Amino acid sequence: MTNPARRLHLNAFVMANGHHEAAWRHPDVRPTDALTLAHYVDIARTAERGRLDSIFFADNLALPRNVRFNGHSAFEPITLLSAIAAVTEHIGLIATASTTYNEPYLLARAFASLDHLSRGRAGWNIVTSAGQDEARNVNLAERPDHADRYARAAEFLDVATALWDSWADDAVVADQAAGIWADVDAIRSIDHEGEHFQVRGPLNIRRPVQGHPLLVQAGSSEAGKEFAARTAEAVFTAQQTLEDAQAFYRDLKGRLGGYGRSPEDLLVLPGISPVIGRTEQEARDREAELNSLINPQYGLAQLSAMLDTDLTDVPLDEPLPDVAPGTEGNQSRFDLVVGLARREDLTVRRLLERLAGGRGHRVVAGTPEQIADEIERWFTDGAADGFNVMPPTLPGSLDDFVDLVVPVLQRRGLFRTEYDGATLREHYGLARPTVRDRHPEKENAA
Amino acid sequence: MTNPARRLHLNAFVMANGHHEAAWRHPDVRPTDALTLAHYVDIARTAERGRLDSIFFADNLALPRNVRFNGHSAFEPITLLSAIAAVTEHIGLIATASTTYNEPYLLARAFASLDHLSRGRAGWNIVTSAGQDEARNVNLAERPDHADRYARAAEFLDVATALWDSWADDAVVADQAAGIWADVDAIRSIDHEGEHFQVRGPLNIRRPVQGHPLLVQAGSSEAGKEFAARTAEAVFTAQQTLEDAQAFYRDLKGRLGGYGRSPEDLLVLPGISPVIGRTEQEARDREAELNSLINPQYGLAQLSAMLDTDLTDVPLDEPLPDVAPGTEGNQSRFDLVVGLARREDLTVRRLLERLAGGRGHRVVAGTPEQIADEIERWFTDGAADGFNVMPPTLPGSLDDFVDLVVPVLQRRGLFRTEYDGATLREHYGLARPTVRDRHPEKENAA
Repeated sequence: MTNPARRLHLNAFVMANGHHEAAWRHPDVRPTDALTLAHYVDIARTAERGRLDSIFFADNLALPRNVRFNGHSAFEPITLLSAIAAVTEHIGLIATASTTYNEPYLLARAFASLDHLSRGRAGWNIVTSAGQDEARNVNLAERPDHADRYARAAEFLDVATALWDSWADDAVVADQAAGIWADVDAIRSIDHEGEHFQVRGPLNIRRPVQGHPLLVQAGSSEAGKEFAARTAEAVFTAQQTLEDAQAFYRDLKGRLGGYGRSPEDLLVLPGISPVIGRTEQEARDREAELNSLINPQYGLAQLSAMLDTDLTDVPLDEPLPDVAPGTEGNQSRFDLVVGLARREDLTVRRLLERLAGGRGHRVVAGTPEQIADEIERWFTDGAADGFNVMPPTLPGSLDDFVDLVVPVLQRRGLFRTEYDGATLREHYGLARPTVRDRHPEKENAA
Repeated sequence: MTNPARRLHLNAFVMANGHHEAAWRHPDVRPTDALTLAHYVDIARTAERGRLDSIFFADNLALPRNVRFNGHSAFEPITLLSAIAAVTEHIGLIATASTTYNEPYLLARAFASLDHLSRGRAGWNIVTSAGQDEARNVNLAERPDHADRYARAAEFLDVATALWDSWADDAVVADQAAGIWADVDAIRSIDHEGEHFQVRGPLNIRRPVQGHPLLVQAGSSEAGKEFAARTAEAVFTAQQTLEDAQAFYRDLKGRLGGYGRSPEDLLVLPGISPVIGRTEQEARDREAELNSLINPQYGLAQLSAMLDTDLTDVPLDEPLPDVAPGTEGNQSRFDLVVGLARREDLTVRRLLERLAGGRGHRVVAGTPEQIADEIERWFTDGAADGFNVMPPTLPGSLDDFVDLVVPVLQRRGLFRTEYDGATLREHYGLARPTVRDRHPEKENAA
């Protein structure tokens, strides 16, 4: 049963020409459009037309290894979303940025700036940057280890939060007659002296419209889930089955109490790549057409990276050979991919097809009603608070989702028909944080 | 004589409510407008209507000390200019960023992104961050010393330039039929191993539209001038007299040959704060009105910071006492301010008024014809290739400049009446850099 107080949330995960790895080769796609701002503005406006909560860009700090065979990010997300902010009104704007390779003062300021530019629509997808190639672009021979990265991330968030809170909301008074611009008693240094960072503050931009930008996370390791339970307000996750998604949902929601938080303080948004047809056959044909454009050489390179194992020479029409988790990668994605191959007894070729649509995220091919059914089922059965929608091609598949699937969800009363809030937090039904800790240790000392 | 091949260049230096320190108190100004994106979009469009070359934002990484009495930057410049890029067509977009507190990979990428978002209109004002407060926001007890900051800046530029050049201009092929996205032979790692940075590359965004963003600088120390002669393509400078400006111009242009560059490879743009009236009297009245809003307490605090000497209690109606240059500051600005006070035998109160308009930059009050005369004289007499225009109030004084002064410059044949180029480099008449060094040491080794 749908709880009428619960609202479905939809984020559009935007990636170049689309999430299917062969999207850019599809005849409906003009591949170099993805190198232009106009392409992303068009997508953002489509998402806004569909009353989606937000758009989101992934990121990392190194060129992907297989750029020969596939497109790559054309823009840096915070600058791109700043540009999009100027030409949209409602849609939330979520940028990925690393706590491992940024400075908290600079990044907290950039997100505060984006939040002001967009009048309260900024979100930050917090990543700790697992890749070795990224470390080598920023003066390190190797990335810090997993525990170090999460320890740094936790401290980074403490600093960023304190910086956003270093201004009271009403610190700017702008009293022309008295000549008083700001109430300096409402602006405090933070004097952070930690393991990873020493930051005096205050921030050189006033408090964000949302208090803090929306905090998003996607880690699925133990450390990642604990970090999310402590910090995140929305979590993107890759889940292939309802049962796995329900288990993840229960697990994550169950951790919140340990941090004094409630289950509704964090939204779980599994990925879904919807391949939409007017008929089920049309949807299957479309999926097959995209899969026919797969380059197995690229697929094997991607699979090798995902499993941290060289699989570039394995036979395509045999089962996935035995593999052991490597040290480089993402354990939860490893388990998901190997689990999928074994559960469905897939050949390597079929596995590559299953991964081509969403790199491990769930691909659902069907009619608008069938896709809405899947969304409703996961939403009502304790697997999702909403979805991270990954259109197989862009802009076409997002147009289809907005024009064909969103109206079904609206008719069912699951999804908004108009924006009723102004900020990303309001879209997601999340509270605006108050300035939490007015440096009580200092006040006690005074 | 005006050389008909020489073109005047005009940059609008944009600062909150205007450059006069009391601008925000002026009755024509709505002070909190400067906290909104709309304010800056309006200014950018006015600059574009005036066919100006560019707009520019200063920056630093700490809250100014005297925010009680004056406004402060409402946005981070790269995000703000990214937003402005989306709603303008022609105007160049110059952001200040520090080589001392950024990572080259991240900053090179952000500028490449801005350059693509704006289709070739990005410029970078390179600063080395003299302030101690900035260091304390990014994990340092003290800023690095002057020589270290410039050594780091030079290496930073080498890395950034190599990263922009890590992609050939034609590296993206996007051949749908063959399934080839990029020519990987046209994308190279940079393998930089230096004193300050170790960066492998390649950059994860293709080569900027302009090859490199326009490189701007404003240092006036010996190290600053050498850095500019090696690196910069435009230089902002504070000059109070024609003679000093001519000397600076000759000095800087004379250094270019040492780096294999020609005098026309670098444009010198002195600051000018134009107080415009329909009559000379109206201009003087407007200047007096702004000066009447000065808060001497703020002015003395600013002067103390500029001279790195506590002057907060000096008598206002006596001459500036003897002061010695401190260690914190900017030696050239110290010389300029003390020189101005001595040359014109100013009381402290009059000195504060002279500094209130432009913090040491030249303030010219007069009719549009008189201001155009000053601009023409400096341009034709070897003191300037153009000007860094610092409107005393915003948006009003920029409107006046564009509506009243620019047409005079256009009638005199000094300034463009339409944009004839697309990129910031084309506005400034500067060449697009080719990919310079295709890693010849590697090719030799092969």
